[in-house]
Amino acid sequence: MYKAKAILKKDIKRRVLSGHPWIYDNEIERIEGDFDDGDVVGIYTFANQFLGIGYINTKSKITIRILSRKPMEIDQEFVKDKILEAIKNRYNLAKENAFRVVFGEADGLPGLIVDKFGEYLSVQFNTLGINKLRSYILQTLVEIFNPLGIFERTEGSAVRKEGLEEFSGWIYGSGPELIPFEINDIKFLADTKGQKTGAFLDQRENAKKLMEFAEGKNCLDCFSYTGNFGMHLLKGGAKHVTFVDYSERAIDVAKEIAKMNGFENCEFIVANVFDFLKNQYESAKKYDIIVLDPPSFAKSATSRDAAFKGYKEINYRSMKLIKDGGILATASCTQVVSQSEFESILVDSAIDAKVILRLLHRGGQPIDHPQIYNILETMYLKFLILQVSLLNK
Amino acid sequence: MYKAKAILKKDIKRRVLSGHPWIYDNEIERIEGDFDDGDVVGIYTFANQFLGIGYINTKSKITIRILSRKPMEIDQEFVKDKILEAIKNRYNLAKENAFRVVFGEADGLPGLIVDKFGEYLSVQFNTLGINKLRSYILQTLVEIFNPLGIFERTEGSAVRKEGLEEFSGWIYGSGPELIPFEINDIKFLADTKGQKTGAFLDQRENAKKLMEFAEGKNCLDCFSYTGNFGMHLLKGGAKHVTFVDYSERAIDVAKEIAKMNGFENCEFIVANVFDFLKNQYESAKKYDIIVLDPPSFAKSATSRDAAFKGYKEINYRSMKLIKDGGILATASCTQVVSQSEFESILVDSAIDAKVILRLLHRGGQPIDHPQIYNILETMYLKFLILQVSLLNK
Repeated sequence: MYKAKAILKKDIKRRVLSGHPWIYDNEIERIEGDFDDGDVVGIYTFANQFLGIGYINTKSKITIRILSRKPMEIDQEFVKDKILEAIKNRYNLAKENAFRVVFGEADGLPGLIVDKFGEYLSVQFNTLGINKLRSYILQTLVEIFNPLGIFERTEGSAVRKEGLEEFSGWIYGSGPELIPFEINDIKFLADTKGQKTGAFLDQRENAKKLMEFAEGKNCLDCFSYTGNFGMHLLKGGAKHVTFVDYSERAIDVAKEIAKMNGFENCEFIVANVFDFLKNQYESAKKYDIIVLDPPSFAKSATSRDAAFKGYKEINYRSMKLIKDGGILATASCTQVVSQSEFESILVDSAIDAKVILRLLHRGGQPIDHPQIYNILETMYLKFLILQVSLLNK
Repeated sequence: MYKAKAILKKDIKRRVLSGHPWIYDNEIERIEGDFDDGDVVGIYTFANQFLGIGYINTKSKITIRILSRKPMEIDQEFVKDKILEAIKNRYNLAKENAFRVVFGEADGLPGLIVDKFGEYLSVQFNTLGINKLRSYILQTLVEIFNPLGIFERTEGSAVRKEGLEEFSGWIYGSGPELIPFEINDIKFLADTKGQKTGAFLDQRENAKKLMEFAEGKNCLDCFSYTGNFGMHLLKGGAKHVTFVDYSERAIDVAKEIAKMNGFENCEFIVANVFDFLKNQYESAKKYDIIVLDPPSFAKSATSRDAAFKGYKEINYRSMKLIKDGGILATASCTQVVSQSEFESILVDSAIDAKVILRLLHRGGQPIDHPQIYNILETMYLKFLILQVSLLNK
C-alpha cells in the first residue's frame, strides 16, 4: 500500500486533527522505511495509531499533504471518486460551458487545478506528489469529459521549489492558443500563454451581480486582464467601458474578446493602474462605476503591510474618482488579507476620501472554488459592490 | 430654524466627522438657548463652526442624532426627500409587494422604521425626536403609498428610556390583525401583535437562496417565528419541514401561513430550541437541512460572552444532527457579534463536532436594510449556508 511510514510528533496540531491536509516538516518525528519524494506514505501518531495517508516531499516545508484519513489505495479509482465528488459538489455549475473542475486541497486532491474551458481542459500539477498521479488524473479527465485537448501549465516558483520541472503545452489532443469558452452568455478566450490556467473563473457570480448596475453607465475596469468585469458591464448595457491593464498581451486578448461579442463602446489602455488612477485624478475625470480586481498583493504574511498599503491606495483613489452615488466594485484575492481586514481598509479609505460607503453586495467565491473553513487557505476571494456618496453634500 | 445650539467638545470623534449620526452626552461641551427634548438643534464645533443639525434628547446617552450636515429646515419637504431617496436606493426591490421602506439611521431618518406589507404599512417611532416629526412622516407615507392602513408599533425598553409613551395600534385607516403580504411568491402574514413590525423582511434573499437546496429534503426550521425559512423550503420542494419556536402564537400564525400556501408536509412544535436540539440528539434523529435563525443573543457588548456561548451550543448541536453532506443554514442578527467572530464560532463548533464545513453561500442584509460602513450599527445580519460532512469517514 505504501513503502514508508511518517510518525508525527507527540502533540499533533489541532489544525491537522480537524481536517487540514498539510503537515509541516517540523511536525514530523521520524520517517520509517524507504521512499522517494512524491511517494505516498502512511501517517501515524507518536503512539503508532493510523492517522491517514498522504504524499511526501522532503524538499517542501509542507512535507506531507494528506490524501485520505482512511486506509486505502491511491489509484485510478481513488482519483476518479475524488473528481466525481468534486463535480457533484458543483451542483448546477457543472453543466456550464466553463468551470473549475478541481480546486486542489478544497477538493481533496492537493496541488491539482483543473479548469474546463468549453471543449478543452487546462490543468496545473503544482506539487511533486500530485504530478506522480498524473496518468490517473489524465485518464479520468478524458473518461469524464472527452475533451478535444488538455493543456498543462505547471510553472512558477512554487513548482520549482517542489523540485518539479516547469512545463507548458498540450498533453492530450491539441487546441488553439486562445481557447474559446462562455460565461454568463458572454464569449471569452482563455490564453494558454496568459496567467495561471489561462483565464480566471472565480469572479463569474460577482461579475454577473455587477451587471445589474451597468445600464447606461460610464465604467472603468482596472487590472482588467482580458476583460472579465468590463465585458459583463458591456453586456449589462454600460454606456462605455475603459479597460486598463499593465499587460499588452492581456489587452490584445481583451480587444479580441470585445470584437467577438460585438462590443464597440469601449477603449483599451496599457498602463500601470496605480499611475493611471493618479493621472485620472489630476484630469478630474469621473466615472459611474469603477472595478478594482488587482492581482494578489502578497503571497505570504511577510508582505502583508505592502498589500494593505496597495489596497488603501487604489481604493482611496477610486473613491475620489467616482461620481456622487456611483459604484465601486472592489476585490481582493490576497489570501493573507482576511475579509474583515479588507473591509477595514475600505472604511479607512472612505474616511480619508470623505465619502459614505453603502454595501450593496458582498460576494465571494463561486462553488467551483470551494471554501473549506477547516482549510483557511482555500478562502481567498473578497468582493464588494459599494455605493460611494459624498459625506458633506 | 432651530432654537438652541449644541457646542461639541474640542476633540470631535472621528466617528462623528466621518458620517456617524450619533453624538453622545459626554461629547457635548454645552448647549446654548432654550429647547425641549425632541427638538431640532444646531450642532457646532468648539470653534463655533457649523457641523450639522439634529434632534436632541437629554434623557438619552445618545443625546443628539444628526439629521443633516447642511443647514436646512427639517420639514415636510426634508422628510419626503429622505423617504423618496430611500425608495430610490432600494432599486427593483421597491416594486415588491413587501419591503422595508425606511431603516432608521441607514436612511438618514434616525429612529424611524417603516415596513410595507402588501396594502399596509407598519411603523415604529423609536425616539422622541423622530416622534416629533410623525405628522410629516405619516403625510408623506400616505402621499407616496396611499395605504389601506398604517399600524404603529412603538414599544420596548428603548422607547421607554427615550421618555416616549408606548403605543400599538392603527394610526391611519385600519386593517386586519394579521396583515397578508407576499415574498418570493409565498404568502405570509405580518402579526400586528407579534414581534417588531409584525414580520421580518431581512432574510428574503437568504431564504430564497436556501430554496435551491430544498428539493426532497427533510428539514428543521429552528427559531422559526412565523415560518419564513421553512415556508421557503416547502416552496422549494422540501419533503418535510419541522418548525420549532418557543412562541405558541408565532406557531399558530405559521400554521395559518402553511395552510394559505397549501403546504401539508410539515409539523409545528412549540419548544425551547436549546432543549429541542438536545432531545433530538438523544433520539438520534437526523436532518438533511437545519436552519438556525435565532433572535439577538446580546443587545449590548456586556452580554457578548453569553451570545458566543449560545451560538456555539446551537450550531454545535445542529452539526451533530445533520446527515453527512447535509446543510446548515445559520444566521446571527446580534450586531455586537461581528461577521468574523460569528464565523470563528462556527469553525470552533465544527472542530468539536468533528465535521468539515464547506461554505456554499455567504448572505447578509438585502438592500432594503441598507448597510453603511460609516455607521457600523446598521450592519447586523450574518447568514451562511454550509455543507456539513464528517471528518473521518
